[in-house]
Order: sequence, then structure tokens, then C-alpha cells
Amino acid sequence: MPLAERLATKLKIVVLGSAAGGGYPQWNCRCPVCDLAWQRDRRVLARTQSSLAVTADGAHWFLLNASPDLRQQIQNTSALWPATNGPATNGPAGNGQSGNRRHSPVSGVFLTNGDVDHVAGLLSLRERQAFSVFGTSATLKLIEANSIFRVLDPTCVSTRALQDGIEIDTQFGLRVTPFFVPGKVPLHEETGSVSIGGVGESTLGLEIRTAYARVVYIPGCAKVNEEVLRRTSGADLLLFDGTTFTDDEMVRLGLSQKTAWRMGHMAISGEEGSLRAFAGLDIGRKVYTHINNTNPILVEGSPERLAVEAAGWEVAFDGMEIAL
Amino acid sequence: MPLAERLATKLKIVVLGSAAGGGYPQWNCRCPVCDLAWQRDRRVLARTQSSLAVTADGAHWFLLNASPDLRQQIQNTSALWPATNGPATNGPAGNGQSGNRRHSPVSGVFLTNGDVDHVAGLLSLRERQAFSVFGTSATLKLIEANSIFRVLDPTCVSTRALQDGIEIDTQFGLRVTPFFVPGKVPLHEETGSVSIGGVGESTLGLEIRTAYARVVYIPGCAKVNEEVLRRTSGADLLLFDGTTFTDDEMVRLGLSQKTAWRMGHMAISGEEGSLRAFAGLDIGRKVYTHINNTNPILVEGSPERLAVEAAGWEVAFDGMEIAL
Repeated sequence: MPLAERLATKLKIVVLGSAAGGGYPQWNCRCPVCDLAWQRDRRVLARTQSSLAVTADGAHWFLLNASPDLRQQIQNTSALWPATNGPATNGPAGNGQSGNRRHSPVSGVFLTNGDVDHVAGLLSLRERQAFSVFGTSATLKLIEANSIFRVLDPTCVSTRALQDGIEIDTQFGLRVTPFFVPGKVPLHEETGSVSIGGVGESTLGLEIRTAYARVVYIPGCAKVNEEVLRRTSGADLLLFDGTTFTDDEMVRLGLSQKTAWRMGHMAISGEEGSLRAFAGLDIGRKVYTHINNTNPILVEGSPERLAVEAAGWEVAFDGMEIAL
Repeated sequence: MPLAERLATKLKIVVLGSAAGGGYPQWNCRCPVCDLAWQRDRRVLARTQSSLAVTADGAHWFLLNASPDLRQQIQNTSALWPATNGPATNGPAGNGQSGNRRHSPVSGVFLTNGDVDHVAGLLSLRERQAFSVFGTSATLKLIEANSIFRVLDPTCVSTRALQDGIEIDTQFGLRVTPFFVPGKVPLHEETGSVSIGGVGESTLGLEIRTAYARVVYIPGCAKVNEEVLRRTSGADLLLFDGTTFTDDEMVRLGLSQKTAWRMGHMAISGEEGSLRAFAGLDIGRKVYTHINNTNPILVEGSPERLAVEAAGWEVAFDGMEIAL
């Protein structure tokens, strides 16, 4: 492949939001880590909720999850702004009247689960813009069952069900393979006793490929199983669930009765943690994202931050750009 | 009433968001007014979606509508941040463990309709915080019918149905009287032919009183009828629907087939417009809010902006503070 074409298909990733549900700081929280953010301590950066934008051609972008903060994230990311109107840059006007006044570089959205922090941003993509929504049948059903999402005009917005291991060719230089990972149903769909760590339609990882790079994105994962090891091994980049540092982090702070496991996430530290699970694998770059407001890795120079960095991990931040 | 107490019950309003649905600039729009914002032209200010915060005691705040941008709006408004934890400022810890690490000055949310730009922000008020949601039965039913709103834990979040003309005493120095205004059902609930301008449960105005001030807030209104005139007459402050300047603004720009009327809003200008409707009334301050991204009053010095200013109106902006 000629160099020009190869450069043109460079995989670019922008971390739109690196925090877990609620963001950092969380609106109603004064835990020690949130406190630093409210005090504008220079060791921490505020973070919006979990989402990535990826492109291979620099023109067509795919969102991996649509967080409630999506409008703000688009405003902060000039690559996602609508192109200037007029035939000079956009070709002839579509309807002879608008001069292409409506446009977005966002071509599609991949949903890894149905949690509010990953789907509510769809409500910010209204206003008759054409794009595709990809998710498991379970996630798409949930959106269909909630009438508020009807603001996405079905004559513009198409949906496509993802299946375990079946690759999607986005047509714009990106191929995306979803795979089921251990998780749980979204909080708002919980009824009675909740099964945690099952592998099924509730929670996905995404493997993203161009001709020259392979990235794996798993923002929620209850356990690293054989499939997760197989998919991540040899990847150029892994963006992984960094929700909590310890499993009982929120319980010990008196903020919740729920462990990370109960929320469908594995902790970073400990025997069952992700640091240990990925220690032996050959992965180009390892980045924690979807970081909860209580997680001390958010604090530069903290023992926990130093521990993950010493193990070769980076900590994602909003606006982080990665090119492969 | 002693001066100290009187000062303590001063009505304070912060405009959290002054734009209509989609915000300004809108994520996929390059209309002439959005263009200025994307170009960072100094005649315009970016604006988030429609919401106000009001308080009488400075400690307990009520949101009038909860926009999709609410998380960002809270981050931008220090009066709405959680109070520092610990007994010294907050009294004894609730559970002996948390040291009151969770807190919010937000005591309640009044919804004027069920549109996405007014209700989606409820999804940002999750995380087991106690507050009240006030809306008509129709609006509350809509929220109940959408399972995604179950992230608001019903053991913490209470709902209360509003009725036409029946005052709510918030217990914190604010009394709020909802009244039906001409409108339409939310976009996502439209089915078949849509009735516009009817007076019923779909659309509310709110009259907010302290012992010393009276404010009327009507962010959506299809027509000024006798009831609207009666409620606004003599008010210290009116915040009114400034969605579009002309009724066919979006049609002429080729952005939509819909007039302002079709969206349940009256234009500012024209025979049937709000400038004319309120011209003779005795109102202390008149402020346009819920301003669509296409509305030229967003541009400082534009003929339309000068026209509304000449008629005694102000144009709301995010962070605008009013004390009465």
C-alpha cells in the first residue's frame, strides 16, 4: 500500500470522557478524591463520562458509547464539529436550500452496554442527523422500549444488532468485532436478584482494526476470562475498565453497599484484579478508562497511581489522543 | 419582618442554560448563527440547554427543568456543588461512616413539560440523592414509562403531581404555582396528527413567589392567552419563550419543515409574536430564554437583538444571575 494511503488510514482515537457513571467529580459527592476536584487541586483533572471517538480516515468518526456528557464532549473536540456549509467544501447541497447546513463527522455509535453512562448521549444526537447505532439485541431493545429515544428519527438513524464475534465493516477503514464479556444487566433493568459475571448480551468488548493496528476497548468487565485474554493478547492498545482500585472502595467510604463486582466491574488491584490479570500479556499500550470518582488513580502521584504506572499502565484523561 | 430575615429570603435565580433543545451551537448545525459560535466570534456566547436554578434561602435550590447539560451546568455553578463533608459544617454524619460525603443543594426539580431538553437531566441526578420531582401527571407518567429513569432510586426521589393553579409550598421560602399554557405534547410522544396550542397537562408556566417577589417562567408557550396575561401582569420578572425570532425561521433556512408554532412555540416578532403580546403589560424585567440556535437575537448588535432590547427585553445567557 502506498505511504499516502497508509497514512490516510491511520487509526486515531480521542478519549472523549474517561470517568465512570456520574463523572468526576460526581455532582453530589465529597469523597476524598472528589474533594480534590471541587477544590481545584492541581493533582487532579475533572473528567466527563465514558466515551471514545475513533476514525481511520480522519473524516468519518465512530463513537464507542454515547455518554450523557456527549454534547459537551463534541463542543470540546473540534474534529467532531460539523463541517462548514457550502459547496466549496462539501459538494453540492443536498436539498438545494440548506447549502448543507447540517452535517456531522459522527457516522455511527457502538454501544458496549445499556447503562445510562453509555446510552444517554444518544439523546444529544437528535435533530435529524443520519448515523448508525450498533449494539446487542438486548441493548437495542432497551432503547426501543424507552419512548424518549424516539427523538432519534428512524428515517435518519438506523440500528444494527451486534453478535458475538461477528465483525462489522464500517466502510471507512475501520472493522469492529464485538465480543461478549462477563458483566451484568444495566442498573435500570435490574429486577430481583441480579446475576453478575455472566457472559451474554448485556456487556461487550470491542476489537477495532485498521489494516495496521488493533485496539481492544473494554470499559466494563466483571472478570478476565479466556476470551478476554485471547482478544487482548498482542493488541497494539488496550483501553480497559478502571472503575475502582479496590473491590470494596465505595463500601469502605460509606458511599454505597455495592462492591465493584456487584456493579459488574473488576477492581484494578488484588488477586482477582486487572493489574495481575494482564501482567504477562504482550500488549503495546495499556490504558485505564471508565474511572470512578472514588478511584485514587485519579490523583497524580498517589501510591495507587504510581502502582499502575509502575505496572506499565496509563490513566486516560479527557482529550487524550492516540494515533496508531 | 426583621431586615436580616428579609435579606435571607431574597429570591436568587441563576440561568443554568439559556438555549432551546440542542443548545447553541447545535452539534450538527452550520446555520449562520451557529457558524458564528463555531468560529468563536466575539458577538456570540455558547449556551447550554434550558434550565434555571432558584433559591430563597441560599441553601436549598430548585431546578426549573433538568436539561441534558445539567452535569456541566452544576460543575459551572458553585452554589450547586455539594457541601464539604464532616460534622463541622453539616451536622452529625447520617450513617456514622460516610461523614456526610454525599450532599447536594438541589432540593427539587420542577418540570414544565416532557421534552428531552427539560427532562433528560434527571439522568444526571442519580447516585442515591434525595430530592423531589414536580410535574403534571402526564409528564410524570412519561418518566415512569421510560425504564431508564429507574436509575433514580424511588426510595430517595419522590414525585409530586402538579395541578393547574394549585400552589406548592417548597418549605424553603419559595412557593410555586404551576399553570397550564398553550403547547403540545413532547416530540417523542407525538402520534399521528398533533394538536398544537391546546391548554392542558403537556405544558406549564410556573409562578414563583417569595414574600417579596414574584417571578413567572414560561420557557415554552404556543400563544399568549388571557391566563398568561393575568399571571405575568405585575410580575417583578418574566422569563419567557424566546425560541425563534420569526415563525418560519427554520423553514427559510432549509433546516426543518417545522414552524415555531408546529414545535409548540410562538415567535418573538410579528402580529402574533411575544414582543407585541407583552408590550402593554406592567412587568419589572422581561427576559427571553430557551433560545433556538437559529435565532438572530443570539448575536450581539444584530437588528433582531437591538429590536428586542429596544422593546425593553433582555436576552438570557448561561450564568446570568438575578436577585429580587
